[in-house]
Amino acid sequence: MLVRKTDMPPGMSFREAARKTVAMCVSDFAAKGARPDSFLVSLGVPRGTTEAQIKELARGFKDASIEWRVKLIGGDTNEADDLVIDCVMAGFAENIVTRSGARPGELVVTTGYFGYPPSGLRVLMENAHATKDFRDRAVRSVFHPVPNLELGLGLARYMDSSMDSSDGLAICLHTIADMSHVGITLDQLPVKRDVRKFARENHLQLNELVFGGGEEYLIVGTIKREHLEKARECASAAGGVLLVLGQVTREVGKVVIQEEHGRTTPIGRIGWTHLS
Amino acid sequence: MLVRKTDMPPGMSFREAARKTVAMCVSDFAAKGARPDSFLVSLGVPRGTTEAQIKELARGFKDASIEWRVKLIGGDTNEADDLVIDCVMAGFAENIVTRSGARPGELVVTTGYFGYPPSGLRVLMENAHATKDFRDRAVRSVFHPVPNLELGLGLARYMDSSMDSSDGLAICLHTIADMSHVGITLDQLPVKRDVRKFARENHLQLNELVFGGGEEYLIVGTIKREHLEKARECASAAGGVLLVLGQVTREVGKVVIQEEHGRTTPIGRIGWTHLS
Repeated sequence: MLVRKTDMPPGMSFREAARKTVAMCVSDFAAKGARPDSFLVSLGVPRGTTEAQIKELARGFKDASIEWRVKLIGGDTNEADDLVIDCVMAGFAENIVTRSGARPGELVVTTGYFGYPPSGLRVLMENAHATKDFRDRAVRSVFHPVPNLELGLGLARYMDSSMDSSDGLAICLHTIADMSHVGITLDQLPVKRDVRKFARENHLQLNELVFGGGEEYLIVGTIKREHLEKARECASAAGGVLLVLGQVTREVGKVVIQEEHGRTTPIGRIGWTHLS
Repeated sequence: MLVRKTDMPPGMSFREAARKTVAMCVSDFAAKGARPDSFLVSLGVPRGTTEAQIKELARGFKDASIEWRVKLIGGDTNEADDLVIDCVMAGFAENIVTRSGARPGELVVTTGYFGYPPSGLRVLMENAHATKDFRDRAVRSVFHPVPNLELGLGLARYMDSSMDSSDGLAICLHTIADMSHVGITLDQLPVKRDVRKFARENHLQLNELVFGGGEEYLIVGTIKREHLEKARECASAAGGVLLVLGQVTREVGKVVIQEEHGRTTPIGRIGWTHLS
């Protein structure tokens, strides 16, 4: 469910919002290894919305249909105070990768680098300072997220647990740890130099950008060591990467990051928590 | 999609709203002859909503789960300016009754009497005058609609076209006529004396209450004459009725009501039209 006031920062078009609502579902399917087939959309539309704006929404749904080969098969419309776009998707899977399958000794992996969407939001909402290149990349990650469906579908056979990162990396790690009754120790952050620089220059906590932002639409999960090589080939074939962040431990519920000199720091449960 | 401002008149509880959102889907399934299995809910919740209110919503979803034996299997939550509840339902059917199967000579039927929900809204919103009994019945039809799922499932095998009446009787008749390339001539209204009296006493157009209200969650459809008796037994076994309103004609797109003395009056396309 996308709500204009909450989820559409200044400058985001109706077309991008419509496409993104579908992308949010595609990302969930990618993380579970399920091929999406079709989607339904409920639109809550405020009085005063123009026909041109409705057509923009339709274009966004069409963009998504083409991009991920999914069909818009129905939905509902209503009047609302603010634009609301709710999308639900149906598809097929032979198996579903759960959030409860992580086992001690497995590797914790993800399909990309974190921190761009929260950086983009700070550029858009708080006028944070950024180079043109970084600004473009970060803002684009907000307006035009690209979940890698083919990567998710290929990767699914190697993953023992997984979750879409839209609620943030910390929530993913904690949820997988809780549901699998394990702990997780990271020994590196999935973050590039540009995000580090952006955080430093804007006096932002790097950990908040990496762990608490969300909306990266990446996959976070765990995998047996012996599957790593094949999984990496698979990610690469789909134009993506697979980063190893750390490993699953027996220390139930303990989600930490290993600092230099052996000290560990707990990773807080920051990010989007439903009905908190 | 239910939106508080648009769809929750004064006095309607969160629990009733949640249950009604599911009822809206159940009614669609009943009209199509499909047995619902499970549903997902997206909630848009305004800041300041209390835990007690969220629990009320949960109770409403539970009411619906028990009433129609459906399982709440997932969904989403978000922050919104106004309460938004969006429900989607999944289930099973061997065949789907379409809106395009009406053939000239068939009978036009419905599974109950119209006009209570729009009367209830006028009582609640405009303080229309009504007896206590009528007020109770009309308001209850708004707060606690009861689509007859078993009736719909039983009736489906006899219907050649059908549609759920939530957008209003006129929309149903016009949609079936358009999609089936036929006309429809009614010779009676599905309305009881109490609604006639309410209309008269409040100087309301009876036709508006009957044709343009919507939210009755009844089934409107067409059926071959030779199936009428069995269909009626089936409706009766499910605790309902089957009313014959008129017949399907060859006069494509002509949706009329036959008055006394043989004159016909067109039935306007009043009711809820998506994105009009």
